[in-house]
Amino acid sequence: MTPRFVRLDDGVLGRLREELGEGGLITAGDPLDRYSRDETEGLSFPPAAVALPSTAEQVARVLRLTHEAGVPVTPRGGGTGLSGGALAVHGGLVLSLERLDRIRAIDSHDMVVEAEAGVATGELHEAVEAQGLFYPPDPSSLASCHLGGNLAEDAAGPRSLRYGTTRQWVLGLEAVLPDGRPLRTGGRNRKDAAGYNLTQLLVGSEGTLAVITAAVLRLLPLPGATMSLLMPFGELESAAGAVEELCRTGDSLAACELVERRGIHAVAGIAPVPSALLEQEAVLFLELHGSHDEELLEAAARLAEVAERWGGAEVQAAQDAAEQRRLWAIRRQVGEALMAGSAYREADAVVPRSQLANLVRAARRVAAAHGLEVVCFGHAGDGNLHIDLLQGALPEERWRVAREAAQEELLDEVLSLGGSITGEHGVGWTLRGAFARTCPPEKLSLMRGVKELFDPRGLLNPGKIFTQEGA
Amino acid sequence: MTPRFVRLDDGVLGRLREELGEGGLITAGDPLDRYSRDETEGLSFPPAAVALPSTAEQVARVLRLTHEAGVPVTPRGGGTGLSGGALAVHGGLVLSLERLDRIRAIDSHDMVVEAEAGVATGELHEAVEAQGLFYPPDPSSLASCHLGGNLAEDAAGPRSLRYGTTRQWVLGLEAVLPDGRPLRTGGRNRKDAAGYNLTQLLVGSEGTLAVITAAVLRLLPLPGATMSLLMPFGELESAAGAVEELCRTGDSLAACELVERRGIHAVAGIAPVPSALLEQEAVLFLELHGSHDEELLEAAARLAEVAERWGGAEVQAAQDAAEQRRLWAIRRQVGEALMAGSAYREADAVVPRSQLANLVRAARRVAAAHGLEVVCFGHAGDGNLHIDLLQGALPEERWRVAREAAQEELLDEVLSLGGSITGEHGVGWTLRGAFARTCPPEKLSLMRGVKELFDPRGLLNPGKIFTQEGA
Repeated sequence: MTPRFVRLDDGVLGRLREELGEGGLITAGDPLDRYSRDETEGLSFPPAAVALPSTAEQVARVLRLTHEAGVPVTPRGGGTGLSGGALAVHGGLVLSLERLDRIRAIDSHDMVVEAEAGVATGELHEAVEAQGLFYPPDPSSLASCHLGGNLAEDAAGPRSLRYGTTRQWVLGLEAVLPDGRPLRTGGRNRKDAAGYNLTQLLVGSEGTLAVITAAVLRLLPLPGATMSLLMPFGELESAAGAVEELCRTGDSLAACELVERRGIHAVAGIAPVPSALLEQEAVLFLELHGSHDEELLEAAARLAEVAERWGGAEVQAAQDAAEQRRLWAIRRQVGEALMAGSAYREADAVVPRSQLANLVRAARRVAAAHGLEVVCFGHAGDGNLHIDLLQGALPEERWRVAREAAQEELLDEVLSLGGSITGEHGVGWTLRGAFARTCPPEKLSLMRGVKELFDPRGLLNPGKIFTQEGA
Repeated sequence: MTPRFVRLDDGVLGRLREELGEGGLITAGDPLDRYSRDETEGLSFPPAAVALPSTAEQVARVLRLTHEAGVPVTPRGGGTGLSGGALAVHGGLVLSLERLDRIRAIDSHDMVVEAEAGVATGELHEAVEAQGLFYPPDPSSLASCHLGGNLAEDAAGPRSLRYGTTRQWVLGLEAVLPDGRPLRTGGRNRKDAAGYNLTQLLVGSEGTLAVITAAVLRLLPLPGATMSLLMPFGELESAAGAVEELCRTGDSLAACELVERRGIHAVAGIAPVPSALLEQEAVLFLELHGSHDEELLEAAARLAEVAERWGGAEVQAAQDAAEQRRLWAIRRQVGEALMAGSAYREADAVVPRSQLANLVRAARRVAAAHGLEVVCFGHAGDGNLHIDLLQGALPEERWRVAREAAQEELLDEVLSLGGSITGEHGVGWTLRGAFARTCPPEKLSLMRGVKELFDPRGLLNPGKIFTQEGA
């Protein structure tokens, strides 16, 4: 499957312009620039052009055109990806879904929302919450990431501890196959056992099988009560060790996140952070959901006891909505703040929850062996930590060599703990080598077979997930 | 893809016997008989032989043998399926997983259980509950159905209203491909974004892609409090209409099931049923989960108000565990009791929840048009009703004609309500025609492609899901 790509020539561009109108196609100059990057450190791949369709039908017509012409197409959502998944690494056309930004229906009877791929996740939250409904997935980038990207990557976030990842909320998809044929999977039914579950196959397929244009998502009633807890620890390993027991303590826990000292300090560089927090080696951020405040207060007391047993300092509780938002804003800004402070290489390691403290130890050992600084933060309750190796004051060349070697060693450590090389960021472009190296051949060959089935010409998001023969 | 199957000859039988031992292969006489049927009305397909491997390695060796020989293989769990999925419709070998019945590990640190395919679902419940843990999926046949069958069919049950179907609890699978190569997907990680999600593709694939030998399942802490409610209604349509509002009322609701009069009466024929229940046209069975009894009492009061608004009679609550079990035993026995009373044809219709009352009306209309009696019962909260057309006193030939015509019409009504032809029983053998007729061609062709990818010789569970060209 060595793709031979055709350049996006003036003929195809003309037909695209005809289809999309003058404002629907970007072909040169500054605006192209922002479509050359996502939030993955150090990558830039300028596409030949960017298509901005406004409807699913336009998406289908664009794909028919590019398929006929043999031009590679890279679908793109909010551009917040962390594995280079939305970058046109083989050139060609970037297909941005940003103009498919309608919430088509919020149905409180069926308790579903139908929304297009370009809706920002945070907007979706606000819209359904205004009707007393609740959509759980909450990636840290929720203000700017899009539903389509969330679906493509099976995005998660703090609340996936209790509610699972994006895939658990999808009932149906509206998508377009690489050759422009529409494909609908599922619908508004809460259950559906008719044939293979193509919905679940498309979710998490990183835009390599089809372009998702809209989805039907299942909703919950908004929780009656929420509470947030801040648990400071004098040692990172104690914080990581406490996580497992906290997660076993009652069923109110919706999120259990960890940030180590350096992460908190980084946030303090870009936003106000209470000074008491800056003195801690590690902090756990917990969110509790339930019907009543009293129920959560009681759960909080039990959780505080666990923290104390693990050597934690005094727990702070927030019940006021504004106060909870302030607290979680600190957690949400860690990634961004670290990126602002230094060049970095982020691993998205996931291990069985009981291995969390071992993962933290492995991260420190590997970083130290290569003279690198390291920060761990993220979705501790799910065993999923973002491990940022930082350049700090290291000269460029040493940094380059050290980060590659350290990342490879770290991924091996993760696998030896029974983990996976990516918990939520996806393989994308950055991990395709690691994936090829670590995925058992029978699995890899089935996955390649699935790709070939949906996209026999290899035109949709080429270069992602799989290494290419001859490339 | 017209499969040409080879008969199971003495040579292959001899090699299987060598592999499995004398007690591991059934080739003639009475015991074969029970492997000719599952719980689908009126079907019997005697296999040439039944293999009873005890380990995943033996499963792999059996499949290598049958694959070399070109013999069709039908995997089988507890034999409780309702779409003929475990029947050897093209003869050959039945591969029973019943001896793979070990719970390999219950890990309260990772909060997972690793269990083999032949473990009965009810046993799994008991084992994890003894350790304060909770596995939500609860198909009505849980005393006799097996985990492997639950995974193959993506089984659900009353509690899927709150907790989702089996697929939401699976972290990893141990499986064997049709040619005998082992395949492992996922693991103990709560998240995993490395490549296409083969776990989710295999769950619900009805034993047509690979033979699942074991799974890692995610667990929850056992709920702190449970309560069950019985809501009687003087009219079936009011009961169906109330469901939607009940499901919006708070987040304690774990199950919301409906049984109409005839279903309750059928149970009374085989087990004790409180006489007050026999006077109702329809009954809703609700289960509430939470941290405390008080919380549930309050939720129950809110739910009772909803029922009253919809014209329900007085609600009965059960908090005592034994009392709750007795109540749910009535609900669980409906299917079985109906089967015992009359020949029947069961549809497993699912519609968006707001269409539930319309579904009930459609069922009555279609049944009346064909002079058939009908009973609706099942997972109302999920919009999933089992609609049993009953032969009653109808002569055989009229029954045969009427049930086929009525079923076809009913499925069309379901689709016109935005529903699906099966909510949880799967396509199997019985719905392959309806599936071929109603599945859009681009979807069907992708699904056939997936089948071909995993099972190019078409030897694994042939005749299921898809109609066969030339067959």
